[in-house]
Amino acid sequence: METKQLIEQIKLKKSFLCIGLDVDIDKIPSHLLEETDPVFAFNKAIIDATHHLAVAYKPNIAFYEAYGIKGWQSLKKTIDYINEKYPELFTIADAKRGDIGNTSTMYAKAFFEDLNFDSVTIAPYMGKDSVEPFLAFKNKHTILLALTSNEGAFDFQTKDVEGVPLYQKVLQTSKSYKNSENLMYVVGATKATYLKEIRNIIPESFLLVPGVGAQGGSLDEVCKYGKTQNIGLLINSSRGIIYASKDENFAQKAAGKAKELQQQMAAYL
Amino acid sequence: METKQLIEQIKLKKSFLCIGLDVDIDKIPSHLLEETDPVFAFNKAIIDATHHLAVAYKPNIAFYEAYGIKGWQSLKKTIDYINEKYPELFTIADAKRGDIGNTSTMYAKAFFEDLNFDSVTIAPYMGKDSVEPFLAFKNKHTILLALTSNEGAFDFQTKDVEGVPLYQKVLQTSKSYKNSENLMYVVGATKATYLKEIRNIIPESFLLVPGVGAQGGSLDEVCKYGKTQNIGLLINSSRGIIYASKDENFAQKAAGKAKELQQQMAAYL
Repeated sequence: METKQLIEQIKLKKSFLCIGLDVDIDKIPSHLLEETDPVFAFNKAIIDATHHLAVAYKPNIAFYEAYGIKGWQSLKKTIDYINEKYPELFTIADAKRGDIGNTSTMYAKAFFEDLNFDSVTIAPYMGKDSVEPFLAFKNKHTILLALTSNEGAFDFQTKDVEGVPLYQKVLQTSKSYKNSENLMYVVGATKATYLKEIRNIIPESFLLVPGVGAQGGSLDEVCKYGKTQNIGLLINSSRGIIYASKDENFAQKAAGKAKELQQQMAAYL
Repeated sequence: METKQLIEQIKLKKSFLCIGLDVDIDKIPSHLLEETDPVFAFNKAIIDATHHLAVAYKPNIAFYEAYGIKGWQSLKKTIDYINEKYPELFTIADAKRGDIGNTSTMYAKAFFEDLNFDSVTIAPYMGKDSVEPFLAFKNKHTILLALTSNEGAFDFQTKDVEGVPLYQKVLQTSKSYKNSENLMYVVGATKATYLKEIRNIIPESFLLVPGVGAQGGSLDEVCKYGKTQNIGLLINSSRGIIYASKDENFAQKAAGKAKELQQQMAAYL
């Protein structure tokens, strides 16, 4: 998907909401456990109920890998369902991959070709030749970890490297990578005040912002410091939406939570 | 597996060789393509021919993910085969994962429980709470990326952070993580001279050393600077061994290459 199609969706739906599909079999409504593929049944219901309120969906790959082949099947069915039924949605494989060149190429094939995601999250630690194989795919997006929402972000990401924090070094350095126009970045909502300086380095790039809701980040602060003319933000909420209820009407309850966020977002559009 | 069992194997086999199973369907002998699962057939033949020469096997997860569900099935069959037929072998899921706490727990379950690997490689960028969920598993090992063998390692890993290169900061900081005795580290053979300073920080930890062979690293240099009393090294070779030949006798040819390395290693034991 081209970035301009994503921007069109944002304007059309007055939403820059990304719904995280971190699906834990122990947390989904018990009546779904009778289904052949409870995880897919859950995802399908959530997507059908919320697709008009969100512009992006982000399966968290760990939650599928943890169930082995069965989990991989649920993931495949989920991404295929989105791509067939709602091709306007932007899809993110939250995989946080990154390896030497030929291995990164294999990961890129896995997520961009075999599964046909629009984007994948990537860890920057191994540098240029671990990131560029992803950037080589046309109309696919590489979402590089910059400043994450967790406590451990302070271990290395905020440490000073040649006069700037490591996460800023990552932003600066990545701009020199080949096909860097295909880059987006992860910046956690729990560190929204850092967004001002981040926007000095990457004024236009889209940011995937986790941490609103369950992790305590504020939508207002993220918009205040991070919003661009084209919004430039995808605000992710996972647990706060998908686990709104364990009852039979869980999907409607999830839609209710998504609508609350979408309406807050509409004020910025 | 406990570390002492790994050390016993090293002494018994006079080898600290790890064979990387980076299996690309385009590179395996063509007669295998008639098999139901060519990737597993290839791995099985390689493992049967080399198990007495190596102490560890390292499937590179990207190469399996790239083939989707089929790839995941080949991976599962491979690890199950090793665990059933050669339980003395140390197994490494070369996955380079790392995410916020609850997600890292799901990745740990995927590799330590569902697939039953002895260890998994992890990227350190997200810090403490992304690594500790892996360390919580008893008799499982977390192999943290420190200094990788690729060119991009110079983008961030060698940059100065509070007076030391980032990779040294990673080593130092990780020592304070809970259950840090379950840590091993990746240090690329292409940067063997750095091993002297690395050993000042982590004198006893096992190192997984890729980059000997195809990437140009030297076994002698790695041993000179990195060897401990218990060896403390797992030297990985992938392409140099597994793609030694595309003929029907590919497994014997692979064993020949593995034996060359094992005999060089025997001199250090």
